[in-house]
Amino acid sequence: MSLAFTIQNEQQPARRGTMHLPHGAVETPIFMPVGTAATVKAVPQDRLEALGTQILLGNTYHLYLRPGHETIRRLGGLHRFMSWPHPILTDSGGFQVFSLNQLRKVSEDGVRFRSHLDGSAHMFTPEHSMDVQIALGADICMVFDECTEFPASRERARQSLELTLRWARRSRDHFLAHAHQVPWAVDFPGQTQSLFGIVQGGMYTDLRRESAERLVELDLPGYAIGGLSVGEPRELTRAMIAETLPLLPAGKPRYVMGVGYPEEIVEYAAMGVDMMDCVIPTRAARHGLLFTREGRMNIKNRRYAEDQNPPDPECGCPVCARYTRAYLRHLAMAQEPLGGTLNSIHNLALYLDTMQAVRDAISLGTLPQLLSRVRERGGAHIGG
Amino acid sequence: MSLAFTIQNEQQPARRGTMHLPHGAVETPIFMPVGTAATVKAVPQDRLEALGTQILLGNTYHLYLRPGHETIRRLGGLHRFMSWPHPILTDSGGFQVFSLNQLRKVSEDGVRFRSHLDGSAHMFTPEHSMDVQIALGADICMVFDECTEFPASRERARQSLELTLRWARRSRDHFLAHAHQVPWAVDFPGQTQSLFGIVQGGMYTDLRRESAERLVELDLPGYAIGGLSVGEPRELTRAMIAETLPLLPAGKPRYVMGVGYPEEIVEYAAMGVDMMDCVIPTRAARHGLLFTREGRMNIKNRRYAEDQNPPDPECGCPVCARYTRAYLRHLAMAQEPLGGTLNSIHNLALYLDTMQAVRDAISLGTLPQLLSRVRERGGAHIGG
Repeated sequence: MSLAFTIQNEQQPARRGTMHLPHGAVETPIFMPVGTAATVKAVPQDRLEALGTQILLGNTYHLYLRPGHETIRRLGGLHRFMSWPHPILTDSGGFQVFSLNQLRKVSEDGVRFRSHLDGSAHMFTPEHSMDVQIALGADICMVFDECTEFPASRERARQSLELTLRWARRSRDHFLAHAHQVPWAVDFPGQTQSLFGIVQGGMYTDLRRESAERLVELDLPGYAIGGLSVGEPRELTRAMIAETLPLLPAGKPRYVMGVGYPEEIVEYAAMGVDMMDCVIPTRAARHGLLFTREGRMNIKNRRYAEDQNPPDPECGCPVCARYTRAYLRHLAMAQEPLGGTLNSIHNLALYLDTMQAVRDAISLGTLPQLLSRVRERGGAHIGG
Repeated sequence: MSLAFTIQNEQQPARRGTMHLPHGAVETPIFMPVGTAATVKAVPQDRLEALGTQILLGNTYHLYLRPGHETIRRLGGLHRFMSWPHPILTDSGGFQVFSLNQLRKVSEDGVRFRSHLDGSAHMFTPEHSMDVQIALGADICMVFDECTEFPASRERARQSLELTLRWARRSRDHFLAHAHQVPWAVDFPGQTQSLFGIVQGGMYTDLRRESAERLVELDLPGYAIGGLSVGEPRELTRAMIAETLPLLPAGKPRYVMGVGYPEEIVEYAAMGVDMMDCVIPTRAARHGLLFTREGRMNIKNRRYAEDQNPPDPECGCPVCARYTRAYLRHLAMAQEPLGGTLNSIHNLALYLDTMQAVRDAISLGTLPQLLSRVRERGGAHIGG
């Protein structure tokens, strides 16, 4: 599997590195914007490039349902379909099958579910998830896992982690047998996608450890920690990450799925996490919540009605360079589509700039200072 | 009033010219994208600049209701509020009061109406419309007129045109007395906004002529033909324009409000119209209708599901340079906001490029050839 991971320098347990993937290099620690349906909602691809986006996440479940993975395969794969010539990671579809479907039915074989779009019946198995992800052609694929719900009993969490481990093995075997079918095989001779494993285990530290240890036996090129951000308190998220990370191979990328707020992604990177993704920056943006270097800002607040400052005076993004809080508030109040676009661009800029600052701080040995600055502003809400 | 209009060359009755306005020069014939609520829906300002947009239209009615003209005045005027340092034209609010309000009540003094946002009661008079437009600070303002409905009896059309003429005089008098209050007065010493008159007269050619002749007596720096695109057949629109244009001063800009389709704007420019505006390119875009050099394209059509061509292979816009019909169809089917943005950028590019082609054809003496090319493709629908 075509992934080389080099570590430039460390500030234990954090590290700065580079993943070399078929569609380009990705500097770690990295934040990956979420492009659910082959688009980061409301943001054009050239803007993402201008912001320094190095890798996007695509959602297998959504793309499988619409426009369909076979369509995307025939169009040359997801990179070509959405005109994104840089690295992409696809999830396995597991999380969405669980979060968007009330009527799912899990068996040893896989999951039966109904489309949230039209109610039609579908089944995902580990093998099918691999087929779909190979058709999409992301640089990094994820094993098909069962995302353990929260709260879950110990017994339930164990049963779920065992199923995820059996599915991980089936995912890997099927992936290895079919990886040559990736749509860009001809354009990248000798290269394939890479498959990452996913640690589960609910909120039980011993189960997390067991899941990690047994998963590592599959010798995959990278490992993720899944089943977090499912409603548990933040301290529990942090504890599960802290417990699991040391058991994942230090020489391979370590990915925490579905996190987090700006202060959290810095915190986790400082703990040694290499990759993160989250819908928060774009989803919050569409609801008028801006992240700034001074804290969180609900741009709909009346106090911004005649505020001529940029959203974040310390920000160098194209939105802060051109527009005022008063204008962004107006767009939000009027539900103008431009508001979602501009707010998303700013929030993504803040996330990406934050991770660049983390990478630089690791190189400069100043991570503790960055961490305390970010913690300070973390929960702050400016302007109510 | 600060407007100088120079005509570079003519291909009778069409002419190519330049309007010099406080916020810059505008080449005519020009198409003005509509920025209803201080935003061209879904398109960032720097994209509009990159497409060569020279002047935007803002809607007085919408901006008066939200965020309010006093707010915009305190923020330095509409240019600064929306970060658009180039020319702007505002309409008088008259058309929206009539089209968005079922419960309006017209008197000699003005129009009572209810906000379409919250039902609150308001009144626009010619004097009030001028006050609002001065607070917004557009380079060009429009007199407050009554937009005659279609169909209207001859008697009704006459009564309406008389009211519009009385209102035009009141608009001019109030405008002249208060033009020094424009928010950017200090930044543009000695310069003011310019006020244009509006011809009404329903679909009666003699009333149109009378309206034009009596309006011209006010000696305004430009004149518009209003009350078109209100549901009448296209031939009638054309006939009213043809009847009215020769009566408007040749040395001043002539503006037809609220038109049209790509083939129409070429047609009208060839008849001697200098300025046009219309929501069609952006509104159609948000519904998946693309204008191309081959005709109209409903991008939601199934036949585009795997079509890897750009929307318009002859187009040089950034959307056609990067994205396929298959991708735009996917965005439209999934109701992704990026679809509205990309489709709007393409449609505006086609409109603006079309007017650039008209200006060039006037200079080159090739307008008849352009006209017949555009007429040919005009009504064509490609791909059903």
